[in-house]
Amino acid sequence: MIDGPERAGDGASRRSFLKRSLALGGAAALAGIGGRRASAAEGGDPAITEVQDWNRYLGDGVDARPYGLPSPYESEVVRRDVPWLTADATSSVNFTPLHELDGIITPNGLCFERHHAGIAEIAPQEHRLMINGLVDRPLVFTMDDLKRFPRENRIYFLECAANTGMEWRGSQLNGCQFTHGMVHCVMYTGTPLRYLLEEAGLKSAGKWLLAEGADASAMTRSIPMEKALDDCLVAWKMNGEALRPEQGYPVRLVVPGWEGNMWVKWLRRLEVGDQPWQQREETSKYTDLLANGEARRFTWAMDVKSVITNPSPQAPITHGRGRTVATGLAWSGNGRIKRVDVSLDGGRNWIEARIDGPSLPMAVHRFYLDFDWDGSELFLQSRAIDEKGFVQPTKDELRAARGENSIYHNNGIQTWWLQKDGALENVEVS
Amino acid sequence: MIDGPERAGDGASRRSFLKRSLALGGAAALAGIGGRRASAAEGGDPAITEVQDWNRYLGDGVDARPYGLPSPYESEVVRRDVPWLTADATSSVNFTPLHELDGIITPNGLCFERHHAGIAEIAPQEHRLMINGLVDRPLVFTMDDLKRFPRENRIYFLECAANTGMEWRGSQLNGCQFTHGMVHCVMYTGTPLRYLLEEAGLKSAGKWLLAEGADASAMTRSIPMEKALDDCLVAWKMNGEALRPEQGYPVRLVVPGWEGNMWVKWLRRLEVGDQPWQQREETSKYTDLLANGEARRFTWAMDVKSVITNPSPQAPITHGRGRTVATGLAWSGNGRIKRVDVSLDGGRNWIEARIDGPSLPMAVHRFYLDFDWDGSELFLQSRAIDEKGFVQPTKDELRAARGENSIYHNNGIQTWWLQKDGALENVEVS
Repeated sequence: MIDGPERAGDGASRRSFLKRSLALGGAAALAGIGGRRASAAEGGDPAITEVQDWNRYLGDGVDARPYGLPSPYESEVVRRDVPWLTADATSSVNFTPLHELDGIITPNGLCFERHHAGIAEIAPQEHRLMINGLVDRPLVFTMDDLKRFPRENRIYFLECAANTGMEWRGSQLNGCQFTHGMVHCVMYTGTPLRYLLEEAGLKSAGKWLLAEGADASAMTRSIPMEKALDDCLVAWKMNGEALRPEQGYPVRLVVPGWEGNMWVKWLRRLEVGDQPWQQREETSKYTDLLANGEARRFTWAMDVKSVITNPSPQAPITHGRGRTVATGLAWSGNGRIKRVDVSLDGGRNWIEARIDGPSLPMAVHRFYLDFDWDGSELFLQSRAIDEKGFVQPTKDELRAARGENSIYHNNGIQTWWLQKDGALENVEVS
Repeated sequence: MIDGPERAGDGASRRSFLKRSLALGGAAALAGIGGRRASAAEGGDPAITEVQDWNRYLGDGVDARPYGLPSPYESEVVRRDVPWLTADATSSVNFTPLHELDGIITPNGLCFERHHAGIAEIAPQEHRLMINGLVDRPLVFTMDDLKRFPRENRIYFLECAANTGMEWRGSQLNGCQFTHGMVHCVMYTGTPLRYLLEEAGLKSAGKWLLAEGADASAMTRSIPMEKALDDCLVAWKMNGEALRPEQGYPVRLVVPGWEGNMWVKWLRRLEVGDQPWQQREETSKYTDLLANGEARRFTWAMDVKSVITNPSPQAPITHGRGRTVATGLAWSGNGRIKRVDVSLDGGRNWIEARIDGPSLPMAVHRFYLDFDWDGSELFLQSRAIDEKGFVQPTKDELRAARGENSIYHNNGIQTWWLQKDGALENVEVS
């Protein structure tokens, strides 16, 4: 670390920093340490005046990595599964490292995975998509066929309905990667599903669509025709390049704002019918068993939700008191996020956060609260409000409405307990 | 303003196309084959009725790849260098495979590279950014210090000034990856440069900024203070994750809309001065030698530009006549793209293309022309117009204005000759 007058951070030097900062305005007006006085300017700073290795030698050339990879220093920034969660990794999940990311785009290599029979590795030239059922002309499309239809590009979040599911029964996992990491957000390119259905010719009795995957689980979900004709895409690219294998290469369904299980990967068949199919994944799974024994079904749109990603249990504060950036993500299956509030005291007082970056319907929104941490313990929460007026509830409110049998559809407010040493824990407050 | 949209769209062929398009509307109305009648529906299509391998076996589980990679079937989708272009790969370039991409986000693994002394592999904990020169308080920042300033997230294109440089002397390279692949577009996260300069306290004489890289070339460029205080970012993330090593890990300068050479990578120093430094990269390089012996200098903002990425020489039409998707990218250092026109006949007639996806200032825009190819030979061109009214010129217009000594700043209209067999070539038409 570099020596400098500001590093002491107490007494006169800190006070003078505050005074100076207030005079500057904007970001610099926040108290804390945003840099050290450069003794380097007088020739004394070894970190600057000493020539470092990377200044002394040629690095790798442009022929080294035809497909680029992260720095070796980022080797811990990875998706992680929780091995005890499922019997086998082929029907399991790993998690987006939200605490290591920023902005609203999830890089393809870090988008969480959820499969029911492992990653189907499909040869695109051999893959086919069939439309059958209540249509005038049953059709089979090659990938090349699909690419002749008009395309759209949309940035959407995809959230697994089980995201934050462990939290129904109290705080379980210590880190937003594990509590909230079954969400990602990328730009999809594909063709609107309605173009394919129009090509096949929908019969008037066709009110439902069955989407079927080509993996060994043959994932199947029923989708109401109104949604299918509205904004669904048959997509073959994410963030510009081909879908990743674990995201359904070569083609998946995109069902904006709705639970991830419906975004059928490795899409091989679309059947038009007059009623839902009552498949396993929409009866025994992805439904919410209420306290009275009834089950909520067909709860497709993901509710308004948010989480603070930094600081969080996997990303403690290491800089001590002073200027601090809190940041997180908010999203809603109902459209855009209108506002995000942050609380430092477990929900008693709320401060409107700054939303930065594009605000797009059914995409994640990035929010920030720049504040001056005095070193005391805090109970950090975020609460999102969407453009339809829905407000993220507390976990207690959710439990009062739905009981505690649920696994899916938990959009409750999350609390991180920030301790004096900068460490954080997943807790609940009442 | 070199050209006017008034020139566009006269003559019978455009009128008949418009009429046809208006009458048909929507994708399915376009002629051509978008799928085959599914004998599968009657049990006869082997592609559907036969169970394929990926339907029969479990695939890899969620523990297989903590950091995900593309499908093995996409192994040819890579950046490519042109080995004969430079003496050594450590001071060279490779190219974004534009013809393999869609949408407006370039995935991090496929962003072109341009280095002057190879890829500096920097340990982020040891990296420092110094601000010195005409400031009240010279400062040294660690990476952790930078992350305490307020952040912004912006999607910007980055184009090397030498992109399309080979085309000054006629069509040279057969493929948009090589003619136009020194551009990429990602979401950056960082702090506005003005916050750091305010923290250091700008002296009133400080009108220029020198940005210096930590690689062995110690890349240095002069930037006018007005730009530095306007929209420049000091960025550490791209598409959500840490900058890639070849893009300046752990921190680079983002100079929206301006030539890529100024976006100094591995940023280690910012010096405030009262005049430009006249560094090598702004005198002997990145200037344009005119026919009269004078050189254009400080031509920072990248001019309005576009290119058709599909079909193109590396991406021929393989489906024969009928429904065809032409697509490409347009961008301008002046802000948003207002319109893109496409010509099928070498610039005699123009058709307004459909821009799809977010339209963001100084980001690439994705355009499409869905048309019905009759199998005849075409001369495909695109022409972008930005929100300031600038119109992309022809190559001949550019040469008339600047001569043929140039390497940099070629934004001329590109022509692909589509032949009857679907193959394409890089040609010029007059």
